[in-house]
Amino acid sequence: MNDGRTLRPDGGDGLAPITAADIATQTGGRIVGDPSTAVCGIAPLDRATPDDLSFLAHRRYASWFADTRAGIVLVSPQFAELPGPAATRIVVDKPTDAMVGLLARFHRRERRSSGVHHTAQVGDGVRLGAEVSIDAFAVIGNDVTLGDRVWIGAHATVGEGSRLGADTRVHAGATLYPRVDAGERVVVHAGARVGREGFGFVPRNDGVLRIPHVGRCVLEHDVEIGANSCIDRGSIDDTVIGAGTKIDNLVHVAHNVRIGRGCFLAAQVGIAGSARIGDGVQLGGQAGVNGHITIGARAILTGQTGVIGDVPPAEMWSGYPARPHREQMRSAAALSRIARLVRPLERMLGREERA
Amino acid sequence: MNDGRTLRPDGGDGLAPITAADIATQTGGRIVGDPSTAVCGIAPLDRATPDDLSFLAHRRYASWFADTRAGIVLVSPQFAELPGPAATRIVVDKPTDAMVGLLARFHRRERRSSGVHHTAQVGDGVRLGAEVSIDAFAVIGNDVTLGDRVWIGAHATVGEGSRLGADTRVHAGATLYPRVDAGERVVVHAGARVGREGFGFVPRNDGVLRIPHVGRCVLEHDVEIGANSCIDRGSIDDTVIGAGTKIDNLVHVAHNVRIGRGCFLAAQVGIAGSARIGDGVQLGGQAGVNGHITIGARAILTGQTGVIGDVPPAEMWSGYPARPHREQMRSAAALSRIARLVRPLERMLGREERA
Amino acid sequence: MNDGRTLRPDGGDGLAPITAADIATQTGGRIVGDPSTAVCGIAPLDRATPDDLSFLAHRRYASWFADTRAGIVLVSPQFAELPGPAATRIVVDKPTDAMVGLLARFHRRERRSSGVHHTAQVGDGVRLGAEVSIDAFAVIGNDVTLGDRVWIGAHATVGEGSRLGADTRVHAGATLYPRVDAGERVVVHAGARVGREGFGFVPRNDGVLRIPHVGRCVLEHDVEIGANSCIDRGSIDDTVIGAGTKIDNLVHVAHNVRIGRGCFLAAQVGIAGSARIGDGVQLGGQAGVNGHITIGARAILTGQTGVIGDVPPAEMWSGYPARPHREQMRSAAALSRIARLVRPLERMLGREERA
Repeated sequence: MNDGRTLRPDGGDGLAPITAADIATQTGGRIVGDPSTAVCGIAPLDRATPDDLSFLAHRRYASWFADTRAGIVLVSPQFAELPGPAATRIVVDKPTDAMVGLLARFHRRERRSSGVHHTAQVGDGVRLGAEVSIDAFAVIGNDVTLGDRVWIGAHATVGEGSRLGADTRVHAGATLYPRVDAGERVVVHAGARVGREGFGFVPRNDGVLRIPHVGRCVLEHDVEIGANSCIDRGSIDDTVIGAGTKIDNLVHVAHNVRIGRGCFLAAQVGIAGSARIGDGVQLGGQAGVNGHITIGARAILTGQTGVIGDVPPAEMWSGYPARPHREQMRSAAALSRIARLVRPLERMLGREERA
Repeated sequence: MNDGRTLRPDGGDGLAPITAADIATQTGGRIVGDPSTAVCGIAPLDRATPDDLSFLAHRRYASWFADTRAGIVLVSPQFAELPGPAATRIVVDKPTDAMVGLLARFHRRERRSSGVHHTAQVGDGVRLGAEVSIDAFAVIGNDVTLGDRVWIGAHATVGEGSRLGADTRVHAGATLYPRVDAGERVVVHAGARVGREGFGFVPRNDGVLRIPHVGRCVLEHDVEIGANSCIDRGSIDDTVIGAGTKIDNLVHVAHNVRIGRGCFLAAQVGIAGSARIGDGVQLGGQAGVNGHITIGARAILTGQTGVIGDVPPAEMWSGYPARPHREQMRSAAALSRIARLVRPLERMLGREERA
Repeated sequence: MNDGRTLRPDGGDGLAPITAADIATQTGGRIVGDPSTAVCGIAPLDRATPDDLSFLAHRRYASWFADTRAGIVLVSPQFAELPGPAATRIVVDKPTDAMVGLLARFHRRERRSSGVHHTAQVGDGVRLGAEVSIDAFAVIGNDVTLGDRVWIGAHATVGEGSRLGADTRVHAGATLYPRVDAGERVVVHAGARVGREGFGFVPRNDGVLRIPHVGRCVLEHDVEIGANSCIDRGSIDDTVIGAGTKIDNLVHVAHNVRIGRGCFLAAQVGIAGSARIGDGVQLGGQAGVNGHITIGARAILTGQTGVIGDVPPAEMWSGYPARPHREQMRSAAALSRIARLVRPLERMLGREERA
């Protein structure tokens, strides 16, 4: 925790300097230089100050290393003796991994508000667990249940009858429509819209009729929904996001979709209605999945893939219409080569026809 | 309406059980079993309880039918006698259609708030029709006109001078920029942004100048704008969404675009500036339309289509660059076949050249 | 400024009629007709009233000209004498440019609120410049610094420790996560999410671990972020949007991305983590850029382009996988032609094999 006295714009908290000796111990690295050198932030080589830890993992950044002002640099073994101004180095096998492992040491946790802000509107019949935080101007509908340590951000709305498990967090301005069911440790980022009645209409003589949506919207444990993403509720079935599945920003998940456990959906992915996504599936940015399609477990779709039929488990597919990635790449290469042959082929076939 | 006493997570209201006899009457079906069996919710076969109505329309779900606990099942004629635990069945020609027709019976209408919440901020010169609802923390600008039964959700903003027709609803956290013109029965979902000044700049010596936007943003009767979608106002013309057009989540409509009546825009569609979309056009998810293009009436663009030129009326186009769907599919198939011919062709043409 | 008395739906302020003589002076045009004719709004030919200025730049709109009710029409020289009801015309070389130059005269500036609204929540240690406006229900975190004339819209949140330069505007419902750094004259539109911790996870035995994000999110001077767009903060580096770069609606920029100065990102563009975008790059709508890729300065990517490798400076690329636009178009044309050759080629090669 942080008392806010020494804000640093780069996010280091400036309160707990860490020594080279300490870093070497945590990373299992070898110190070259002064073990008492201390840093209190992290920065890339080109903008690090003497108070910062940095890292050099690839020769392409060697020129930055030559000029860096970083106090300590994590380096891979081949750079242990590389000339450069950084007097203190810590030699580790994988500097990037070591850096990621250290990030939590430099990370300033957001200060948690405590209790229910006096401006928040809390409905009737709401059940609050222990240590729940509700920020300014949040609106909690009737009969909502919030588990222990749930944190509802400013301007968020939690619709009537919704249930949120322990340690779940809803960020600023997110909307949970009525009767959303979220497990424990779920994160809903700013501006996400969860549980809207989906996009379903049936034609009538006098226009179209909206299909009523009686299904639920279920986010299982440890699900994360990115900023401004939209997860619609089910019409005649539920929409379910499986445990541990992580969804990035601006993603659309339509009604009745079922996503398995441990999936990753990158930003701007779109899943049309009633699609089934197996466990451990990875969808690249801007990929789209047609309605009523099944994506097998552990399949990988690369960015912008457009899926119009079922995808078998554990395969990598790409392109539009989506095909196995290897085929897609082979076709793209063939197309490049064939483009050069079109004219001679047309000439040749013309001769054949005349012959 | 619902008094909130008996919330059920699946959205049935639990207050008005419906008997098999009643369902048979409404659907024109034939009862097999006990006409007095009653249900109060809807669920797919695999998770239905004895209190639920379910349906079996396709042989592929027959195994679920064998184990279902559903109280009543709508079945098509060929499954009327299918062995299974569901004692009460209603035989109808199209179980899915029958189900959709019944949804409204099981749907719990959201409880409407009444009047203007004491936290809402209402500007000067605002005209409110009868039975208008304005929820907590909503902000209504000066000189806004709201028709009868308009419902403004929590944290929504309605910009100065906007006019909303009767029965229009703006959901939580949506933003109407100043001077938006919305007809009757319009629905603006959570987080939608309507009437922003569009993305237009002209180069200047000292950078770029934003083009002022003096056009309006007009949503005609019965338009629906999905969650987090963005509809920009016009610069020198209006942006107009025609009557009855339904727009899904995360859609972008740029300045000066005119969309006809009765169109459907699926999620994540993008329409660039000054495009003209005819009546009854259907745009699949993630489709994109270039600026200043005309899409003819009743044209259909499949998902992810990228349109860079005009599309004639009533045709189905797909792919990038968009072409008639049939041509696109033929090319994709040809490409697969040609990929296998590239090497022999290159060899043959090489021989020809040497000859 | 406008006192709100005479609202006009087309956005003209109705307060300052402008005469043909005045328009001719400003545009350097020649008057045909009565120099004292006055207008107070702008509209296209087909819906202009006698109080409106309109323009005719292309023969295709000549039929509208024949019926227009516009009070004054800007016309190019070849239409100076075109028969039509518009008695007063102003002949200019480029009517569209002239129109854009005049827009500011007809544009009704949004009335700026003054001071801090009594419902806004302002944290401890906040530093406010001169003439700052903070609208209803905005939430300003602790230790935030707002420069002169900063304007924070209704329901916006500015996270702890953020710093905003002079004349920056944050529209309704936008979220600045903690420690965002915005320069002067920055515009953040409604519902944009700036500075979220990005989408980064490392596998663990018991699931995945979120990578802490210690980098900043920096918006340099004159940056504009469109409605509902998402700009994530950096993990081990900063996310930086260069000075003067304009970003449209629903765009995603992932962690550690660096975008140069004077770029244009059209709506629904997605940039994956750690990509580097040079100065003056233009990205068409729905274009996607893979992670860790470099786009050279002044490159142009057309709409829906999917970039999976580096793009050299100043080239135009398109398609998926992205290639130089000219090659892409050549391949598309070749594919159309080759589709007609597949069957004869297969037949011919079959004969060859049998021969």
